[in-house]
Amino acid sequence: MHERPPLSVTVLGLGTMGTALASALLDTGHAVTVWNRTASRATPLITRGAARAGDVGEALAASRVIVTCLLDHASVHDVLDDHASALTGRTLVNVTNTTPEGSAELASWAASHGADFLDGGIMAVPPQIGTPSAFVLYSGSPSALETARPALEAFGDVRYLGSDPSLAALQDTALLSGMYGLFGGILHAFALVRTGGVTARQFAPVLREWLTGMVGWASSAAERIDDGDHARDVASNLAMQATAYEGFLAVARDRGMNPLLLDPLGRLLRRRVAEGFGHEDITGVIDYLTASTNTTGASA
Amino acid sequence: MHERPPLSVTVLGLGTMGTALASALLDTGHAVTVWNRTASRATPLITRGAARAGDVGEALAASRVIVTCLLDHASVHDVLDDHASALTGRTLVNVTNTTPEGSAELASWAASHGADFLDGGIMAVPPQIGTPSAFVLYSGSPSALETARPALEAFGDVRYLGSDPSLAALQDTALLSGMYGLFGGILHAFALVRTGGVTARQFAPVLREWLTGMVGWASSAAERIDDGDHARDVASNLAMQATAYEGFLAVARDRGMNPLLLDPLGRLLRRRVAEGFGHEDITGVIDYLTASTNTTGASA
Repeated sequence: MHERPPLSVTVLGLGTMGTALASALLDTGHAVTVWNRTASRATPLITRGAARAGDVGEALAASRVIVTCLLDHASVHDVLDDHASALTGRTLVNVTNTTPEGSAELASWAASHGADFLDGGIMAVPPQIGTPSAFVLYSGSPSALETARPALEAFGDVRYLGSDPSLAALQDTALLSGMYGLFGGILHAFALVRTGGVTARQFAPVLREWLTGMVGWASSAAERIDDGDHARDVASNLAMQATAYEGFLAVARDRGMNPLLLDPLGRLLRRRVAEGFGHEDITGVIDYLTASTNTTGASA
Repeated sequence: MHERPPLSVTVLGLGTMGTALASALLDTGHAVTVWNRTASRATPLITRGAARAGDVGEALAASRVIVTCLLDHASVHDVLDDHASALTGRTLVNVTNTTPEGSAELASWAASHGADFLDGGIMAVPPQIGTPSAFVLYSGSPSALETARPALEAFGDVRYLGSDPSLAALQDTALLSGMYGLFGGILHAFALVRTGGVTARQFAPVLREWLTGMVGWASSAAERIDDGDHARDVASNLAMQATAYEGFLAVARDRGMNPLLLDPLGRLLRRRVAEGFGHEDITGVIDYLTASTNTTGASA
């Protein structure tokens, strides 16, 4: 149980995630009101002590803190627009997945109706909510953060990124994008060892061990990227890595695989070598991902 | 210091990695002979107690265990072919980077000259050799492993994969391939947050934390892949993930990025949804990476 006084919190949207959030709030002693378009989804939470709101207006009136956990940005407006005046003086915490621009738009819209706005990016799957492995990125109004904090702590570790409301969605998107790079690498690796009769179960422990160690590369890469100095402390230079990379692609092809998940990075490595940066670290290829060189990057 | 009797070990090839291996052998009390085409590279090791071989024949005659750490598969033959008869009765441990097929070829060639052969894939950079973070994958002759083991333990943790000599190179390649998927995801993530004024240094800690947790996905993915059952215990289904993935690509494009590193997985997710597997986990796309569906996979 948290040590702060309980809050009155309304959760709008009882999909798997919204249900997990409402459940975590009940577990930590808050006064919880719930609403969902399909009302039956609320029943298990009502049984556990949540109040059922008959409509959105009733749901907004019931609590100081309003949490929206809906399908997408448009559905937040669908649900709230007819009740905007009821938001005045309340704290709106949106954890619906939105783009950074969508979060910024919601912040402006909420402010225009007198609501204090915080956007959240939940870095957990529903079963992890309320466990030590969950964390949530927040950005927006600092006073909204302070008001809602006792409720937010029920969800997972609170990470506040700053007052720009788009920051949470931006970093949430970046984390998930990075994860899919990792997942693509894992899928390629499993497919490759399978060509030699090695099962994924056999290979998973060493793959996890290896990749866990390699995640640390992000820190040295960050220094090179921020400083624009890709030639410092190079352990294995780009030219050597590009050559080895061609070998990895060739091994995959020779074994009947389609290495399409790894092809694009290979193209960037080749291009960077051709442009005279073979002595550097591979981090310099980040320039091909960004706007200034986008036109040529697209054809790399 | 290891507890077994020291071995006589020759290291052929004194690039950064070969030098690190020879140095680790000296540190653990073995009798080390070294040879390099450019002889001056041996001098620091000679100063520390290694014996200098004047030519390859002398290098092979000096030791029971021969370690080759050369540029590539062809250079192993360049160095050894004229001295093949001197390999008879010796244990040859090749840690030169080769393809799985290259390792298998070296094993046959070594056997035809009466040498016991072991192939190694070093999962470490040279500064890590001899530290707890280094491990080396080996495959090939079990008796070669037993003979060479006291020397191999000086390099890093010994992981023996089996008698098929191609296994170490195959799994080494798979680990490095998986690593580049991870690196691609990290580079995309850093480029994306930079569009919002977030530095890579600011973002690296949460990115590391998040990706370290997500590496665990390899284990649940392995079970689905081995069993061919991608619909079991689905926490977030393919259709939802494919929709979210399009959103991540759109965010990158809207911010002037080229999301080329993430595009291929997006194509596979869309294709898999279109083929009716939206209710499953994303692991089913592994079928598009392998031979049986390779033709269509190439145009996915």
